[in-house]
Amino acid sequence: MPQIDLNSDVGESFGNWSIPDETMLGIVSSANVACGFHAGDPMRIRATVEQAAAGGVAIGAHIGYRDLPGFGRRFIDYDAEELAAEVLYQLGALEGLAAVAGTQIRYVKPHGALYNTIVSHQVQARAVIDAIASYAEATGRDLPVLLLPGSYALEYARETGLRGVAEAFADRNYNPDGTLVSRREPDAVIHQPEQVVENMLRLAQEGVLIARDGTRIETEAESICTHGDTAGAAELARTLRQALEDAGVEIRSFTAS
Amino acid sequence: MPQIDLNSDVGESFGNWSIPDETMLGIVSSANVACGFHAGDPMRIRATVEQAAAGGVAIGAHIGYRDLPGFGRRFIDYDAEELAAEVLYQLGALEGLAAVAGTQIRYVKPHGALYNTIVSHQVQARAVIDAIASYAEATGRDLPVLLLPGSYALEYARETGLRGVAEAFADRNYNPDGTLVSRREPDAVIHQPEQVVENMLRLAQEGVLIARDGTRIETEAESICTHGDTAGAAELARTLRQALEDAGVEIRSFTAS
Amino acid sequence: MPQIDLNSDVGESFGNWSIPDETMLGIVSSANVACGFHAGDPMRIRATVEQAAAGGVAIGAHIGYRDLPGFGRRFIDYDAEELAAEVLYQLGALEGLAAVAGTQIRYVKPHGALYNTIVSHQVQARAVIDAIASYAEATGRDLPVLLLPGSYALEYARETGLRGVAEAFADRNYNPDGTLVSRREPDAVIHQPEQVVENMLRLAQEGVLIARDGTRIETEAESICTHGDTAGAAELARTLRQALEDAGVEIRSFTAS
Amino acid sequence: MPQIDLNSDVGESFGNWSIPDETMLGIVSSANVACGFHAGDPMRIRATVEQAAAGGVAIGAHIGYRDLPGFGRRFIDYDAEELAAEVLYQLGALEGLAAVAGTQIRYVKPHGALYNTIVSHQVQARAVIDAIASYAEATGRDLPVLLLPGSYALEYARETGLRGVAEAFADRNYNPDGTLVSRREPDAVIHQPEQVVENMLRLAQEGVLIARDGTRIETEAESICTHGDTAGAAELARTLRQALEDAGVEIRSFTAS
Repeated sequence: MPQIDLNSDVGESFGNWSIPDETMLGIVSSANVACGFHAGDPMRIRATVEQAAAGGVAIGAHIGYRDLPGFGRRFIDYDAEELAAEVLYQLGALEGLAAVAGTQIRYVKPHGALYNTIVSHQVQARAVIDAIASYAEATGRDLPVLLLPGSYALEYARETGLRGVAEAFADRNYNPDGTLVSRREPDAVIHQPEQVVENMLRLAQEGVLIARDGTRIETEAESICTHGDTAGAAELARTLRQALEDAGVEIRSFTAS
Repeated sequence: MPQIDLNSDVGESFGNWSIPDETMLGIVSSANVACGFHAGDPMRIRATVEQAAAGGVAIGAHIGYRDLPGFGRRFIDYDAEELAAEVLYQLGALEGLAAVAGTQIRYVKPHGALYNTIVSHQVQARAVIDAIASYAEATGRDLPVLLLPGSYALEYARETGLRGVAEAFADRNYNPDGTLVSRREPDAVIHQPEQVVENMLRLAQEGVLIARDGTRIETEAESICTHGDTAGAAELARTLRQALEDAGVEIRSFTAS
Repeated sequence: MPQIDLNSDVGESFGNWSIPDETMLGIVSSANVACGFHAGDPMRIRATVEQAAAGGVAIGAHIGYRDLPGFGRRFIDYDAEELAAEVLYQLGALEGLAAVAGTQIRYVKPHGALYNTIVSHQVQARAVIDAIASYAEATGRDLPVLLLPGSYALEYARETGLRGVAEAFADRNYNPDGTLVSRREPDAVIHQPEQVVENMLRLAQEGVLIARDGTRIETEAESICTHGDTAGAAELARTLRQALEDAGVEIRSFTAS
Repeated sequence: MPQIDLNSDVGESFGNWSIPDETMLGIVSSANVACGFHAGDPMRIRATVEQAAAGGVAIGAHIGYRDLPGFGRRFIDYDAEELAAEVLYQLGALEGLAAVAGTQIRYVKPHGALYNTIVSHQVQARAVIDAIASYAEATGRDLPVLLLPGSYALEYARETGLRGVAEAFADRNYNPDGTLVSRREPDAVIHQPEQVVENMLRLAQEGVLIARDGTRIETEAESICTHGDTAGAAELARTLRQALEDAGVEIRSFTAS
């Protein structure tokens, strides 16, 4: 029976500013929980963690740059030592909230500009991965890291002995070489739900993505990144999950395998 | 052989703003390490934790209000639920940094306005203590809490089953009822090193403080709060430690007993 | 022809967190614009100011405590000197953004916990009012302050020579003495649009509020505080404006009189 | 009579973290005052502005990235629109504090990573300069901008009609092409006070810097950047001022010419 993981960003509310995530927590198998640096405040993060734990959704630490005004979406030119310490701080903070909810962090996914930066920025990639590896070792834990296929961070994670897990994007078009079509191009995003479903079914069943020119791309993606920050996005995620299940694909956290 | 603990606030540097604490980490037996909410950034906290671990100094989580501009010294009218989550977040964050340094949090001490508020503010006191208790339970740990003698928080901590540890202040005068002389009064602070030493020696040896009117106060204080934020303060702490040791008092973390 | 002002809080978006205010800016005559301390980031504040200027809506500085996580809704125990400086900083910051939009601040309204605190907290009230008065004097401007009727801040503002403007709350019930029914009581908020409209029409036409026990309360309120943070709230504000205009009441900023 | 300006960074204290600047305010003719984004809190900024005003020191807005943890020393990949709004916000905020001190902003100097970035980053340079130009126009003011000689920002400032003022660094060595010797090289910083004095005297009297290979560099620098963040640095600045005055050079703000 084929299986795939669905992941989504949650825990992004901050104080009076709310980004509801209850719906997505009922759809995905892996929850990327903000850790308070790019989004999330302790009380809201705690509520998210409790709901994820109650629903059997795997909790991932969605670590980011310390940049609430920029929502972690702007590159910041960190020193390695500073970035590493901030990663550890975020992992621990989320772990504390998870612990009292009777659970723990199952994986790590870098957020936004940090995610994109460590595709190629070796100094920051090593700082992040080394920090995660040292935390995993100190706490005696497996901590897979969810990353972009082909990224330096993914390669380096595997070098250090961490499990690197690749993800695909439900609503994005791909170039023949497996990279994402740039958001500057008109067909970067797939807007037709049927197309999203067809692509992700193929991924789950055959391990293949179809590039926009028709090229078949073998991919190692074990998780599908979905979005829930608009009503339409959550609806698409729900449709996708239903279609996958109807086709006999099991939705299951990659941390369970 | 009589023994006593010396504690001091450390880890209070933030970014480019430095409050050196290397000297104090060589004097005290317990280090109240800032957790990033009232002071401390992850990189500087990490360095402090590593030095404390290397020197065998017990690491305490110096939890505070989320208030960098106010250094945690201003009362903030938190909801219980919000405060509890922020306590857990801080405990976890410091624990993450401690874990990779091969150590862990040994105790908790509230900072500044939070420390003062929970002397009498029952809602905040219970929020803080319950959060610490739930964290201790979830992680299977003993987590004594360092507090003001006679405070509601100390009483409530003991009700919940946490070990409540009382502290005395090296350089403060006391009223006959065991409360501190208000800082608004001219003799609130003791400026003569000999007086500080004499008082703290008596505390370590007899468990007694002398109020400003000469009254003997039996006290349960197991730790002495010292300061290191000025050159003179660190010098006083060093003098005090030397005098205590010369008199045969063992300087030892209360977490070791 | 009777006239009244409608005011509402705007400019409260922050980074990726959006609180739309375009609708309310098309309804009210006075816009309380967040200044970045409890809400608002410079780019979003600027956009709000530009829209207000384009629509002829009077711009008020919605000054607050420095507390993004608490949205300025938690009392913070500021020193007078610190609070005064933060008021000046906020006034200037908003003024800078207003200046390049070709306009300027027309009035000041304290936000949230600051608004409520200076009803009775004389030290903070004087710090805020004195800061506004000194800014008004230094810049040669009239700066009315929008406050709660009967508040110490209103009284003190008038003592200093500032114009103190009282406001009524569209959707709140009143006690016979003119104070608001506490939110802890079940009938604190008026949910029927017809009742809101009837009350506010009476206010605009007769200068009278009816307490929940039927008592007629003479009031000096020159402005009506409305809300726009939910779809229902904005709809109510629109209904109220329309009803007032249909009854021949002119909606006009109190700064224009 | 030759004249030159001395500038230094001030107003960089934040809450409990103090960076004293009283000494430097007695030495320099131009004070780059932090605006709260990379350093400075309103109360401390206000005190600095008041002292500068009292001493006849020209007040410059030391605008920076919104990055207290990084002290504005890390590149952040801002959008132009966001950066422009943050510049305006900072200018206004400082202006508000200056106004009640009876003075106003006389010039602008970008800080740290922002200063370095706009040497060559055209998008950010234009965002910053355009914002300053629009603020100057809206407020009817002259606002010279203090920048690195040869920088794109300086060139662009002049294109927009702003006065671009170039500065030299008292304690840095220069390459023959007029650029600074990189801090990665051993002789980046000049440590001998006599050398600093000799170089700056030549600059003030002849408009010439000597590169490390002996090349004479004609420079348009009208101001000398000095530091005061260590005891030694402040002492050097005092020595430099005294030497310049002894040689008949007038120390005078470039905004006065």
